Parts: sequence; structure tokens; C-alpha cells
Amino acid sequence: MMAQQGACLVVGAGDGVGGAIARAFAREGLVACVTRRERNLDQLEALAGQIRGAGGEARAFGVDARDEAAMVALVDRIEAEVAPLEVVVFNIGANVRFDALETTTRVYTKVWEMAAYSGFLAAREAARVMLPRGRGTILFTGATASIRGRQGLSAFASAKHALRATAQSFARELGPKGIHVAHVVIDGAIDGVFTRTNRGDQVEELLAKDAILKPDEIAANYVWLHKQQRSAWTHEMDLRPWSEPW
Amino acid sequence: MMAQQGACLVVGAGDGVGGAIARAFAREGLVACVTRRERNLDQLEALAGQIRGAGGEARAFGVDARDEAAMVALVDRIEAEVAPLEVVVFNIGANVRFDALETTTRVYTKVWEMAAYSGFLAAREAARVMLPRGRGTILFTGATASIRGRQGLSAFASAKHALRATAQSFARELGPKGIHVAHVVIDGAIDGVFTRTNRGDQVEELLAKDAILKPDEIAANYVWLHKQQRSAWTHEMDLRPWSEPW
Amino acid sequence: MMAQQGACLVVGAGDGVGGAIARAFAREGLVACVTRRERNLDQLEALAGQIRGAGGEARAFGVDARDEAAMVALVDRIEAEVAPLEVVVFNIGANVRFDALETTTRVYTKVWEMAAYSGFLAAREAARVMLPRGRGTILFTGATASIRGRQGLSAFASAKHALRATAQSFARELGPKGIHVAHVVIDGAIDGVFTRTNRGDQVEELLAKDAILKPDEIAANYVWLHKQQRSAWTHEMDLRPWSEPW
Amino acid sequence: MMAQQGACLVVGAGDGVGGAIARAFAREGLVACVTRRERNLDQLEALAGQIRGAGGEARAFGVDARDEAAMVALVDRIEAEVAPLEVVVFNIGANVRFDALETTTRVYTKVWEMAAYSGFLAAREAARVMLPRGRGTILFTGATASIRGRQGLSAFASAKHALRATAQSFARELGPKGIHVAHVVIDGAIDGVFTRTNRGDQVEELLAKDAILKPDEIAANYVWLHKQQRSAWTHEMDLRPWSEPW
Repeated sequence: MMAQQGACLVVGAGDGVGGAIARAFAREGLVACVTRRERNLDQLEALAGQIRGAGGEARAFGVDARDEAAMVALVDRIEAEVAPLEVVVFNIGANVRFDALETTTRVYTKVWEMAAYSGFLAAREAARVMLPRGRGTILFTGATASIRGRQGLSAFASAKHALRATAQSFARELGPKGIHVAHVVIDGAIDGVFTRTNRGDQVEELLAKDAILKPDEIAANYVWLHKQQRSAWTHEMDLRPWSEPW
Repeated sequence: MMAQQGACLVVGAGDGVGGAIARAFAREGLVACVTRRERNLDQLEALAGQIRGAGGEARAFGVDARDEAAMVALVDRIEAEVAPLEVVVFNIGANVRFDALETTTRVYTKVWEMAAYSGFLAAREAARVMLPRGRGTILFTGATASIRGRQGLSAFASAKHALRATAQSFARELGPKGIHVAHVVIDGAIDGVFTRTNRGDQVEELLAKDAILKPDEIAANYVWLHKQQRSAWTHEMDLRPWSEPW
Repeated sequence: MMAQQGACLVVGAGDGVGGAIARAFAREGLVACVTRRERNLDQLEALAGQIRGAGGEARAFGVDARDEAAMVALVDRIEAEVAPLEVVVFNIGANVRFDALETTTRVYTKVWEMAAYSGFLAAREAARVMLPRGRGTILFTGATASIRGRQGLSAFASAKHALRATAQSFARELGPKGIHVAHVVIDGAIDGVFTRTNRGDQVEELLAKDAILKPDEIAANYVWLHKQQRSAWTHEMDLRPWSEPW
Repeated sequence: MMAQQGACLVVGAGDGVGGAIARAFAREGLVACVTRRERNLDQLEALAGQIRGAGGEARAFGVDARDEAAMVALVDRIEAEVAPLEVVVFNIGANVRFDALETTTRVYTKVWEMAAYSGFLAAREAARVMLPRGRGTILFTGATASIRGRQGLSAFASAKHALRATAQSFARELGPKGIHVAHVVIDGAIDGVFTRTNRGDQVEELLAKDAILKPDEIAANYVWLHKQQRSAWTHEMDLRPWSEPW
């Protein structure tokens, strides 16, 4: 049985933003298809289970988002077995910081593969199945480094800039063909494993006063973008906590 | 009796976007306080009547948004007689086009007064009453000319750039004090008197395929910005029809 | 006798950047026409005298750059009595800082008049006499506030944004008519009266290591822009000290 | 014998902009070290010969700029055999246009390797030898696609955006260490083999009226950036013909 609302593929569904986005679209009636690398399959299954436990539909797929054949196959499989892809969210980050001389070819390349190439690939494959239907939503998670380089960010900022340019190029081509492509610039620390590990003592206090981005609130904006009526589509919006100095 | 949800002041509430924004916030339970210049008071009263007819609360105020004393008095009066100002939307445009030598001092100044100074004034007066409560939303309507100059736009683009800089400066100061300041870049033709007059024959066809911005859909995004939970606030977003080349 | 190289009008020729620009263009053989308000006429005459002492030609004009009639008359007078206007540099700043509620209408308006309207006026009048000749250079001094608002900068940033939009609009219209319009974003402290007063003890040390913008070096870039061959014109460039964190 | 002015490495020295830049720096007394892929070695030798014929010093190196070991070795060899690297110019483009579904992984990756990764690599290796001396200039050739995506440009614009972010990140880190990093946004058609092939009939006419970018004029701006005194460094400037609509 095909879900009425179609499928939402979240590429990069960790315990933070990606997971929250998957849960949010599942609540809207889409089948959440969540992906992470094979080695995190347990956590991915837990996320899918959590969504099903809350009454939603979910499927977990361990996949390396940089693997073209795997991504092509995944999209085909979702279309064949799950539901038409209505939404694709690309949410893989690779926030590393190295000074110029410490930025190895391996780092520069890997960050680009994860944060830029994988996004291009997911979007292109999404477009492949959405274009014949003339509808669909493709959402990219950006960061401040998407719009500004900084010391130590030659790898990360260049990958995020590349992703943004791909999002913009796709939006201009695919918009007039009925596909809504949007890019969300998230500016600030997000509640999640990383933040809890690194700013442990402060996190509860920051959360209590909403001074840190809450994944569920981020996700609500992704759903909003998807629901925008096509006479007024957003291509880019920023998100940051009220208290963030910028 | 004070409305539970507070008041929403829409500065520049014509028959297009401003009117739709007023109706949308009224549907959310806010008292729509709509303003236009005295000479359009009839239309303004009609808008207020329409909102009340739909079950909302509304008040019409004929006021010149460039008149400091009048705007100070208006804000004070709303606070005293209507409800605490929860939302202020600045929506006055002044989209004129003159080549360099044809741009008179009168035009350059008047466009700035209407599209930039009035926005600063409305926002400052909003901040004055919102700051002690540590809450409130201030929304500015921008345009493509807010981010890019073009031939013929020295007056309009400079005023819109000025307004955007004011919005950004206020956002950075007032955000950490609990006031959400956002700027919406509207890129494309909007359904309304102007468009119907100038592109009359095409409008119905464009509307039928959502190829022209619909005021109600624009307004829905303003309401969304107001409702964003403060851990994930947007400062700027763009809106354009799916079919718009950009 | 008309100068072979034409005249260079510097609007806002104080003891800092404007003075250096006037000296630099005089060294190139243009007649430096320097303006400031009447009340600073003594300093202006001293600048003109200094330029003449160094072998250049210079004329001092006390004028309020916001006074349309005075600016129209000044341009006409230079054309009639001095030389064809080859270069106009608009260099008036108005770097003030006030929080939202402290920004009075007087401040917001006056800063716009000085930093935006005056620039529009000087450029329009320059274009008026340059267009028939199909040549000329119009240069605007910008600042970081030209491209980003910040707390306390609602007046200054909005005026600088407005000026930039005017520069961009004029460039797009006047470029294809042979007039080179450029905007220089100066990012950092500049050696001058203000800096020496406020950072007195440090200035010599900062200057010794070039950690502060030197007016003569800024001026060299304005001359460079004027000399660019028209197959490769710059509209915008930034200038900052090597040591500036940004 | 070491050249007094040091060496200027031009990565991507074809018959257009790169060649002109090499010639221009050679005229300034630097040893022009020009590189292209092995298969174009004949043309590269011809360029070096032309420079020497004009009284300059030049060396030709056939190298794949994406080959890390080769680039490391090249920089070491120039330092050991030629002169200290004073200037490095990265000038490889890869201006291809493919719609979303036609953009293969091969294209997306190769364009990034050529236009982004190679630039990062050249700049990092330049920084490696420049940092101990606390001086040097690194210049990147950008394009309109560096700042805006467009239909068909997902590969090219993303690579150019990536390069720009790397330039910006490096500038912020290396500037305060004495290395001038700048990015030139070239906006418009450039005289060269490509333009002459594709717009053959028009080229002479366009050149006659300077309506097409001339490589020698572009090169003059690169030399200017190198010569900027360090109290007033430019990070980014644009270049376009006067007649270009933008």
C-alpha cells in the first residue's frame, strides 16, 4: 500500500536535525525514509522505530550518500516499494576546522564529497523522479559557512558554498518545472550529541531559555517550506536563536 | 476589553499585500490596526469592515506614516485603547522608476521618506512599547531592489536598501531583547490593483497557474514568521512565484 | 586656460581620505576642486594651498553638499571656469552610532542627507555634464556598514546602503554610456583626526606597521579605478589593512 | 642566479588571461613560471619564449594542477632553482553548462577538481613557502558564477563558489601573517580562443569598442593588487567591460 502523502527521504538523519525533520514529515503523513551510513544502522532503525511508535510510517536505509549507484538504487527502490518521493532533505554536514597548512587533500576532498557532492547527487536523483510528475520539494541544510569563509574553514566553507550554488542553480532550473528547491541557513549551535558533549554543563540552561537551536523547531520550518503554496515560494531563509549575536 | 492576542499594526494596508496581512493576523485573533493616508480612509474603513464581517477585530486609522508625532500618538493610542502591540508590519512601497537625470530631489527624498524613514519610525515606535515587555514581532516588506540596484532604481533601490539595513541593525539589537525583527524579500509581480491595471488581460491566466504572487499566500508567511518559536527565528526570507525566472 | 586633464571634484575633502584623494588626482594633472562646508573653509583653503605648493592646481569651494541649488551651481561653475569635470569623488561620511530608541528623526534624516542624498546629488550632477561627452568617472566611498547592518547603525548603515544602491543603479545605467561608476568599501580605521583623537597613543605604532588605513594608499586606489581601461572596469572593491581581522 | 623580484607562478597559463598575467608580471621583473597540462607543453613553451623574447624571464612547467605530489614538487623546485615565490595566480576555469539531469558525477567532480581543488592546492602550497617569509601574494580568478548560481551551472557555479570560499578563508587567516590573498570576479566575455571561435565575426568589432574583456587589461589589475601597499589591501574586486549589461 502506498502512503497517500508520498515519501520523504532524509539524507543524513542523525539524532539531531535530520531525525527531527524525519519525525516532522512523518507527522504530516509522509513515509519517512531515513538514511545514514551502514555503521550507524542501529541508531537509524531506532529512529524509524520511534517514528512508527508515534503512529507514523518510516523506513531505514543504511547507505553511503557519496555512492552514486547506491543512491540511484535507493531512489528507485523508494519509488517502487514505498511511495512517490515528495520531499528530499539533504542534511549531511561535515563541520571541521583546520588552518590552511593543516588542511590535507584528504580532508578537503572528503568534506566536499560529504557536504557538497552528496547533496548534488541526492537532489539530481530526486529531480529525476520528480520532474515527470512536475512536483516535489528538495531542501538543503546550509550554515553560516555557506555564505562566508573564515579562518580554518577552507574545507567546510568551500563545500557549503558549493552546495548553496548547486541549490541555487537547481532552484532556477527546476522551479519553473514545479519543483520547489530551498536552502536553509542555520546559524548557531544546535541541540544534539555534539553540543551536549562539548558544552555539556551549559546546554540545559541554554535550552531552557531557547538560546540554542531546537531540532524540532528547525524541522517545523522545513515542513513550512514544503507546504508553501507555489505562488509564494521561498528559496532561502536563515534560522538562529533569538539570543544569538550575529 | 483588550483582545487576548494583542494588536497587529499594519502600516500601509492597501488592497494588496497589506490588506491580506491584516486579515491574516485578524484570523489569528489579533486586532488588526490598519493605516493608510487620510485620503484613502474610505478604503481603509472598508477593509476594517470586511475583517469584522469575517469575525475578526479591526480598527482603521488614517495617518501619514512619515509624520513622527502622528505615529507616536498612534502607537500610544493603540496601546491605551486597543491592545498591547504584538506585531507591527511595515508595508509601504514606492516603486518608481526614473533614469539618473530624471530623478529629482523631490522623488529621491519622497521615496526615501515613504519607503525607508517611515519604516524606521514604525519600527522604533514599536520597539519603544515592546522592549519593556521583552516580546513582539516587527516585519518589513522588502523587494528585489532591497538587495540589488538597477538602472532607473536609484531612488527606489536606495530606499529599499536603507530599509533593509535598518531592519538588520534593529534585528541584531532587539533580537537578544526578545523582539523578532524580520525582512521579507518579495521578488515578482503581486496580484493587486497595480498588476490588474497594467497586465490586465494576463492576470487571470497568471493567477490560475499561480504565476503571480497572491497576497494571501504572502500573508501566510508573515504569520509564520510571527509564530516561529524563538529558538529558531528567521531574519530574512524571499518569496517569489514558482514560475518566476530569477 | 583649461587644464589638460580636466577637473576632479572631491565632495567632502577633509584632512583625511578626501584630502589625500584631491592631492593624488592633482598629481595626475587634474585640477583638484575641493569642497567642504563653509565653516571649514580655512582648512579647505589650506588644502588647496598645499596642493598648489606641490605643483598642482586646486580650487576650494565652501558648499553644503545637501544644497541642490548650490551643487548645481558648483558643477556649472567648474565646467565654465575651471575645466571639464573628469572625476567626481563623493566622500562624505556620517559615522554615528545610536541604539534604536536613541536614534532620533533628526539623526536618521541628517545622516541620510549627508551620506546618501548628497552622494546621489553629486553623482547626478556629474552625470549631467559627463553624459554629453560620453566619459567621466564617479567614485563613492563606502564602508562595512554599506553591506551589513549592526546594532547601533540603523542611521549610518541605512544611509550607506542607500548610497551603495544609488552607485549600483547609476553604474548599470551610465556604464554603457561611457561613465565609470565605482564604489569602494573601506573596512577599518583610517589615519586621521578622528583616529588620532580616539586612539592617540596607539596610532603611531599602528601606522608604523601599516595596521591602519593610510589615506594616501586609499587615494592611490581611487586613481587606479579612474585609470582602468574601459574593457575592464571595476564597480566595487574593498580596502582594509593587512592586519585587520574580518 | 636568483631574480631580484622573485617568481610568479601562474597555474593555468593559456593563451588568454593566464598568459597575459604571466607577461605582465614578467614585465615587472618577476620570473614567470607558467604551467599547463603536459599535453599543451608546446604552447606553454611558446608563451615562455615570447616572454623571454620581450626581455623577461620565464619557465614552462607541464603539470596537472590536480596532482598533489606534482604541485608540491613544482613549488619546491621553483623555490630551489628559480626564485622565491612572490606571487601565485590560480587561473584555471572549467566553464561548462549542463542541466540538472545531464550533470554527471564525472562532470561535477572534474569541474570541482579543476576549478576548486586545484586552486586550494596551489594556494596552500604557496602559503607553505610564503608564511616563513611573512610575505607574498595569492590571486584567484573568479567569475559571475562565483557569486550566483544559474540554470545549467550546478557544476561550474558550485566549484567557483567553493574556490571563493577557500580564497576568503585563506585571506582571513593569511592576511594577518603578511600574505595578500585576493579574488577577482571577472564578469563578461574575454578575448581569446574560445570567444574568437564562438563569436568570431563579432570579436574584432567588440574589441574595437572595448566591449569584451582584454586579457592585458585584466592582467594590469592583477599586478595592481600585488603592488597594493599593505595598509590598504583589496580582497575582492570585479572586472567587466564598460558596455556589459549586468
